[in-house]
Amino acid sequence: MTITTAGTKPSLIRAFTAPKGFGDQTLRDPRPDAIELLGGIPDPGVLPAAELAEATARVLSRPGLPALQYSRTAGISPIREWIAAREGVPVDRIVITNGGFHGLALAIQVVLERGDLVAVDNPVFPLFLRGLELSDARTLPIAVGPDGLDLDALERELEAGARPRALYTVPDFHNPSQGTLPAAERERLVALAERHDFVVFADNPYRELWYGDGPEPVDAFNHSEHVVHVNTFTKTLGPGLRLGWIVVPERFVGDVVALRSRQDSHSSTFVQAVIGELVTADETLFDRTLDRARALYRSRAETLASALADAAPGVFEATVPGGGLFLWPRIADDRIDADALATAASAEGVEYQRGAFFPSGPGTDADRHLRLAYGHVDEERLRLAATRLGQAVARL
Amino acid sequence: MTITTAGTKPSLIRAFTAPKGFGDQTLRDPRPDAIELLGGIPDPGVLPAAELAEATARVLSRPGLPALQYSRTAGISPIREWIAAREGVPVDRIVITNGGFHGLALAIQVVLERGDLVAVDNPVFPLFLRGLELSDARTLPIAVGPDGLDLDALERELEAGARPRALYTVPDFHNPSQGTLPAAERERLVALAERHDFVVFADNPYRELWYGDGPEPVDAFNHSEHVVHVNTFTKTLGPGLRLGWIVVPERFVGDVVALRSRQDSHSSTFVQAVIGELVTADETLFDRTLDRARALYRSRAETLASALADAAPGVFEATVPGGGLFLWPRIADDRIDADALATAASAEGVEYQRGAFFPSGPGTDADRHLRLAYGHVDEERLRLAATRLGQAVARL
Repeated sequence: MTITTAGTKPSLIRAFTAPKGFGDQTLRDPRPDAIELLGGIPDPGVLPAAELAEATARVLSRPGLPALQYSRTAGISPIREWIAAREGVPVDRIVITNGGFHGLALAIQVVLERGDLVAVDNPVFPLFLRGLELSDARTLPIAVGPDGLDLDALERELEAGARPRALYTVPDFHNPSQGTLPAAERERLVALAERHDFVVFADNPYRELWYGDGPEPVDAFNHSEHVVHVNTFTKTLGPGLRLGWIVVPERFVGDVVALRSRQDSHSSTFVQAVIGELVTADETLFDRTLDRARALYRSRAETLASALADAAPGVFEATVPGGGLFLWPRIADDRIDADALATAASAEGVEYQRGAFFPSGPGTDADRHLRLAYGHVDEERLRLAATRLGQAVARL
Repeated sequence: MTITTAGTKPSLIRAFTAPKGFGDQTLRDPRPDAIELLGGIPDPGVLPAAELAEATARVLSRPGLPALQYSRTAGISPIREWIAAREGVPVDRIVITNGGFHGLALAIQVVLERGDLVAVDNPVFPLFLRGLELSDARTLPIAVGPDGLDLDALERELEAGARPRALYTVPDFHNPSQGTLPAAERERLVALAERHDFVVFADNPYRELWYGDGPEPVDAFNHSEHVVHVNTFTKTLGPGLRLGWIVVPERFVGDVVALRSRQDSHSSTFVQAVIGELVTADETLFDRTLDRARALYRSRAETLASALADAAPGVFEATVPGGGLFLWPRIADDRIDADALATAASAEGVEYQRGAFFPSGPGTDADRHLRLAYGHVDEERLRLAATRLGQAVARL
């Protein structure tokens, strides 16, 4: 028997690298003895499980069972219309996806030629870089500061001759560094994209989880032919549903549909029908669910920040974020080695994503940070995690 | 504002052609005034809707709501184990997919380099050719006869020097021509694949819908490093679930997982959990469901064949298939033009897929056939469809 050797793998597959750092942590099995602050996971207590079961029973009692039948590639009613109304765009610009990451993958495959240059957040959500391997893209790191993407830094690169085909950023409650791009900078980013002919991949999974006065507007994103605006129900109704959407520029809608009709036909009609029923049968349910989630996550963020200050005074600089699921404390004490701290914390029974997993290039102090995910951990365990981190500091 | 022109589309997208023929018919809106015999759609009456709703309620009452959380790329328990046991393979060779077509798309992307040669059924399921555009593949048509793929024809091509990287076939109740590859020929196909180092994509969505003594064995497929065996719950529990699986050779498992983790992470945990609960909570439910479906589809196939003989005596040669969802009558009367018949049938209020949509090359009489899908149409409407086809024949 002849076995095809690794050398003859298709170029698509050959461009994939082995997971390391962040990916490794994400893929491993949970440690039941440890407090895991690893992923942006919503708390089961604020997911509308009973309402989902009731919505399922209703859609499965409809004559002809449309929820179990084939459907169009871009998505079905009423969920697609409901999303379009919330985004303020025509329904034909909404394509339903299998979650936010799928939306990014579709954008990557539809916009980028293999080997293209893509400007990316620095620090960056590491799984986006993994997705970019679908197009074997090169990256141009752009600094991210307390207000999100640094457009001065981007403009300097563009003026120096950089010609990215696309740019990736998380505009709301940046992952990992938690800044939010102000409204005026969103307009400026879109103007730069239009002038220099690149496509912004605006990745917005945390957008609905704001703690304060509500999020910055997305009109600039939704009304440009140079932005694919990516969102999902992952952080609001549950990652396991695998349902999201993209707001697609008209010029790309046909290509996205053509690609999906060749990859997996369409997202589950069943899941689309259930969520559509959930959010339209009781039109205040989605926002009531979010109100509970926002209050819970804000309280957890404050608890963790304050417990960290108590457990290791002066060691960390931590800002309670404006939304989302992560605290991003900086190790202020220069004598503490960040990798040694992560190792000591693991020994004490706390797992987190170390900041060193997030840089996309030089010039960031991300490696001096910790990304602590608190969404799914109750306040007692968060205080215990802070105590263990304090003990880890004391070990060093 | 500069708009990127069509000329700069990525090569991935440029290889896509506009849907025509079969694809066109599949994508258009339903005609409520017509009897549509277009797609292989299961009847809602034999889908276990109430049991699905109950299974959903149970999985959504579990502590911690695992059904709404992230999961591993290859799939979750218990559905993955249940499938592995039915296929008779180790669980790590099962990758859960978003339906059968998704399984084919993954195989195409993992096995084929762009431009590779792929041997395909002739006639062929046309959407597979659309999927092949993901790898911009060239095709080598291989005749399909009353017993499925013609291995003598394949062997002649191989001996003449053809070097396909893969081969696509539907071994059970072939779509469209309804033959089934005998057990010995399955062994022979696998031996050819191993000797000539190509990968068989064995596409088996209709396998469970046998009418007679049960289907031919798939051991040869499941125990070769040269076969990706593709299956799905589409025809048994409902297309809208979008849940299927592939039995993957060990050498490709890592690549399939790597690709999916960059495209859409994993199939819906929710759908996997619901179907897993459905088929394991009552271990006879799946087979009871299939028994009802088999009896229904067999009866409909017989009704349609006999009504056609009554309505247009001597015009069609139709064999009741051994399973599946399609009748494939041949127009025996040479004076009848097949395209004219389809047009006349449409005017009478019957829509079907004309045989001319299915050839992948010359040398088949598929264009003299009609593909009539009867799975979702009750017997009264099937008789009416036959009557209308008889009227269409009379028009010509």
